Amino acid sequence: MASALLLAVAAVIALGAGHGAAFDPNPLQDFCVADTTSKVRVNGVPCKDPATVTPDDFFFAGVDRPGGAASRRYGFTALPVQIPGLNTLGASHARVDVAPGGVFPPHYHPRASETAVVLDGAVYFGFVTSYPDNRVYAKVLRKGDVFAVPQGLVHFLYNNGTAPAALYATLSSQNPGLVLLADALFGAGLPDDLLAKTFLTDLDTAHKIGAKFRS
Amino acid sequence: MASALLLAVAAVIALGAGHGAAFDPNPLQDFCVADTTSKVRVNGVPCKDPATVTPDDFFFAGVDRPGGAASRRYGFTALPVQIPGLNTLGASHARVDVAPGGVFPPHYHPRASETAVVLDGAVYFGFVTSYPDNRVYAKVLRKGDVFAVPQGLVHFLYNNGTAPAALYATLSSQNPGLVLLADALFGAGLPDDLLAKTFLTDLDTAHKIGAKFRS
Amino acid sequence: MASALLLAVAAVIALGAGHGAAFDPNPLQDFCVADTTSKVRVNGVPCKDPATVTPDDFFFAGVDRPGGAASRRYGFTALPVQIPGLNTLGASHARVDVAPGGVFPPHYHPRASETAVVLDGAVYFGFVTSYPDNRVYAKVLRKGDVFAVPQGLVHFLYNNGTAPAALYATLSSQNPGLVLLADALFGAGLPDDLLAKTFLTDLDTAHKIGAKFRS
Amino acid sequence: MASALLLAVAAVIALGAGHGAAFDPNPLQDFCVADTTSKVRVNGVPCKDPATVTPDDFFFAGVDRPGGAASRRYGFTALPVQIPGLNTLGASHARVDVAPGGVFPPHYHPRASETAVVLDGAVYFGFVTSYPDNRVYAKVLRKGDVFAVPQGLVHFLYNNGTAPAALYATLSSQNPGLVLLADALFGAGLPDDLLAKTFLTDLDTAHKIGAKFRS
Amino acid sequence: MASALLLAVAAVIALGAGHGAAFDPNPLQDFCVADTTSKVRVNGVPCKDPATVTPDDFFFAGVDRPGGAASRRYGFTALPVQIPGLNTLGASHARVDVAPGGVFPPHYHPRASETAVVLDGAVYFGFVTSYPDNRVYAKVLRKGDVFAVPQGLVHFLYNNGTAPAALYATLSSQNPGLVLLADALFGAGLPDDLLAKTFLTDLDTAHKIGAKFRS
Amino acid sequence: MASALLLAVAAVIALGAGHGAAFDPNPLQDFCVADTTSKVRVNGVPCKDPATVTPDDFFFAGVDRPGGAASRRYGFTALPVQIPGLNTLGASHARVDVAPGGVFPPHYHPRASETAVVLDGAVYFGFVTSYPDNRVYAKVLRKGDVFAVPQGLVHFLYNNGTAPAALYATLSSQNPGLVLLADALFGAGLPDDLLAKTFLTDLDTAHKIGAKFRS
Repeated sequence: MASALLLAVAAVIALGAGHGAAFDPNPLQDFCVADTTSKVRVNGVPCKDPATVTPDDFFFAGVDRPGGAASRRYGFTALPVQIPGLNTLGASHARVDVAPGGVFPPHYHPRASETAVVLDGAVYFGFVTSYPDNRVYAKVLRKGDVFAVPQGLVHFLYNNGTAPAALYATLSSQNPGLVLLADALFGAGLPDDLLAKTFLTDLDTAHKIGAKFRS
Repeated sequence: MASALLLAVAAVIALGAGHGAAFDPNPLQDFCVADTTSKVRVNGVPCKDPATVTPDDFFFAGVDRPGGAASRRYGFTALPVQIPGLNTLGASHARVDVAPGGVFPPHYHPRASETAVVLDGAVYFGFVTSYPDNRVYAKVLRKGDVFAVPQGLVHFLYNNGTAPAALYATLSSQNPGLVLLADALFGAGLPDDLLAKTFLTDLDTAHKIGAKFRS
Repeated sequence: MASALLLAVAAVIALGAGHGAAFDPNPLQDFCVADTTSKVRVNGVPCKDPATVTPDDFFFAGVDRPGGAASRRYGFTALPVQIPGLNTLGASHARVDVAPGGVFPPHYHPRASETAVVLDGAVYFGFVTSYPDNRVYAKVLRKGDVFAVPQGLVHFLYNNGTAPAALYATLSSQNPGLVLLADALFGAGLPDDLLAKTFLTDLDTAHKIGAKFRS
Repeated sequence: MASALLLAVAAVIALGAGHGAAFDPNPLQDFCVADTTSKVRVNGVPCKDPATVTPDDFFFAGVDRPGGAASRRYGFTALPVQIPGLNTLGASHARVDVAPGGVFPPHYHPRASETAVVLDGAVYFGFVTSYPDNRVYAKVLRKGDVFAVPQGLVHFLYNNGTAPAALYATLSSQNPGLVLLADALFGAGLPDDLLAKTFLTDLDTAHKIGAKFRS
Repeated sequence: MASALLLAVAAVIALGAGHGAAFDPNPLQDFCVADTTSKVRVNGVPCKDPATVTPDDFFFAGVDRPGGAASRRYGFTALPVQIPGLNTLGASHARVDVAPGGVFPPHYHPRASETAVVLDGAVYFGFVTSYPDNRVYAKVLRKGDVFAVPQGLVHFLYNNGTAPAALYATLSSQNPGLVLLADALFGAGLPDDLLAKTFLTDLDTAHKIGAKFRS
Repeated sequence: MASALLLAVAAVIALGAGHGAAFDPNPLQDFCVADTTSKVRVNGVPCKDPATVTPDDFFFAGVDRPGGAASRRYGFTALPVQIPGLNTLGASHARVDVAPGGVFPPHYHPRASETAVVLDGAVYFGFVTSYPDNRVYAKVLRKGDVFAVPQGLVHFLYNNGTAPAALYATLSSQNPGLVLLADALFGAGLPDDLLAKTFLTDLDTAHKIGAKFRS
């Protein structure tokens, strides 16, 4: 299932490859619909021939129900809103569903700020400020609530209730990037001794935690 | 009622006054929560003392139901998502409800691109490209559909069905600005002869249309 | 004649296709002269081989007299300053001539602010602020006067005198875009009932006005 | 007379103090008219109370004739277009007149690209690319000609004809800055031995040239 | 000692408070030297009176030896380069010393890319790409080596040798921000059950690790 | 030897061709490693296939000793830090060595601010503000000192001591550009009479100085 989520997120990244970062460069024409078939690689996705653009290039359906791939590991699903016409428009979106007891674990977006509106259920949502403060700004969000996360800061979702929670997230970039802290630390193959020093723990604990991410 | 809408929108603008445009300048610290009481006027809203910032500065409630002020003239209501913490984060949001037969008439945002997701009902949504093409990209959107509008282009919502429609709109700016074309032309006191020449019509027709906007 | 104007403006857009918007991304080398023959489509125009660049790539002649194509409909001519070397330099220019009784009707540029200096004659010039204020800032300009228009706001020229007027306009973008409000509304094929609701008028009036733009 | 020019240019800089550089940060509201009386110093000029803004804040007169202060040393006059409303709009303008035999000596703008249109007369105009090429792109410009200069590159005007020349210059910044190369080198009090090494010449020659700038 | 490091880093943040992020807005005048005494809070630091600026405002000494505060926990010291004149210039610097066996643990900068040059010793240096790849790009760096880290990605330093290592780091922002992953997770007071789910481990392990960060 | 330096600097420019200017457009993906073999020319360097990227793409060695090409004319050597992975990351670096009595003559970077740290020796370093002030901010720098130069301002290095000096320079752009004032004036083939008027001197002096640059 993780590989399924991987595919879903990869889809965002694929669509997003080269898309504008948060606070993207301004658009340089009415529209530049992403040409995902182009062999040209630049800081931004090439555009398809405007003559071939249709309304569907600005359209996506299915945000009214859970979708995308599931992370059994964490208990969430993520449905990226894939709109080629968003290329150069400085925004991206996703629906996220978190099962009871599930989390969208602490993560950040290297190139975007974020807001999320709760469509259903309730969830504990928050972000952490940068070093040395590491202050947590968090709140339980319910249906109709909106919460904002500053650019690049660590944030998380935790459904500690009994009903499924659904959110619609907006990122201020077409390709915000996603870094799940635990996966970046334990799923990337960093040396156990580095990780032990990082978490002020022993090699055995670091190794045991890493084993879970390698399985 | 128009003045009520005026107040609601003014609230957005007040909150937004000086906020970043679409494609805002990058944020310059973890956060700069809008200090709407400051007497300082700059290209961007001054920040309140970080020591006084609370989670509620990043929070807004009520997007799950219609709200804000109603425009009886056009048949819509607009509920701005007022989050002081969005200052410098490059985004703003609003819930829009359109009654059966109502419109959010042709308008544009001088400083933002936009996406909208349909929460309920159905609506005819589209945008018009710039001169000389003036091509329309439009589609009937239903619950769960998302549609994108490039920066600064004219777009509209028309509920030509029998059920109320509700949308959640995202703008790529903290202060996108709003220009309703008809109001800018007939509600601003432009000379009738200029308007007649603009619409290739006679003075009497221009005057009659303007009278509706002045009443 | 409209199609002639269309060609002239299309020329600007063609040159401008993908050029930087107002507040363009910074230039990324000494110069990137537009290669209008390139098949590559990106958010910005590809550059021609620097070895083939000549002084003429930074040069344009003919701003000292009326030129470009005429809009008989509105009574103006527009001469775009076509300089391939302006690619990535964040500016564009045009000479505009307005005949007595003619107008450059209310319009805006989705991606630029503008200034205009009067070369000859006199003209009533102004802009309208965004909703809900819709305040008009206008003035009769005479030879040697300069007036500025903020990014994306509606503005107009009206020669209500007896002598031809000529202006030299500067836009803070290489591809500002142009939206003529009346043409975007009535020349794009929007439904008459939407237009009637937009102008608080009846279907017949909306249809009659539209007929002029379709002819 | 130099001090007179100094005052004129200082006026531009005063107005421009803190204005946006070429490729300014985007404007963050409809307008932010420069409040030159504010004691607040930021990266950008504070705005005056919008309630006190008038059409004249976007207006300047007198570009139809020579003006500003004269540089007897070089034989030019420069008339800055002073429009408080240009604050945050990413552009500035000036009229420049060059007497027969006069020059606007080699200079550059640290924060802008430039275009100039010839209003009267003829002038030899050009720019020099960066190290190591130092290639000159130059041309004799006549009435109605426009020439562009990339951001930050050295350029010059030389009226080697018999009639006065007048130009209207546009810079892609509200505060482009101006560096006259010879004045920066010999008018700033750099040590003669450094200048001698810079110009591959002897101390005496460096000192003699500097004396002219100190007188 | 941690609080000492805290002070040192706080000093950077204090100086940096409101400074431009990586890819800062362009500077808007020759210089805007940070006025750290100003009561004005904006997205960027106010400037001191240019008349009071001296060469020392652009100067810092002491990068040739270890300095700043030490983190006994991790075995490094960080010396921020404090130059008020860097306000609006889009860069910041620090000298970092890592003792044998010490680490600058995995961290990222929410608003900057980074490069580091090794002044002395050797260190294992690397960064991790975003989800889902989590690929590590790492290398042992020796004296005179330079390594680059893309904006916002997790990176680390590990001195697994026997000699002290010293680096000079450059960040593409005046206020890049610093997030130490382990501290943000375990030092911020996040609930143990959230942390257990994040690390795919049990409550006891999460609690034990957290205890080290709370001590 | 000049041509040798030319080659070294050309190498920077080659690598930098199309790289981001100071205050570059934000990066649009985790990384976009410069593909210097691409035939595509855009405002920014195309990226190589991410699948072929290795740690060495972010790596450069040799800054611990003098390198690059020497300018016998001025007495300095410049070693550009060539890291393809810096493409889109908004920074570049170089090691500069200045022999006793040598200078890095007055120059500026059209698209960057700069800081320099002294690795060895001592050097007189300074910058000059823009017209009309032309104020010099200078200081003798010794090992471990850092000095900042605002974007686009003229600055210089002068080793008036008896020991070699070495600096590590950081520029806030991947392609800052370099303009040596004397070379741009006398090495570009500008007419002697223009140069004489520029330096308030006679044709013979201008010609004699130019001869040195042509030899």
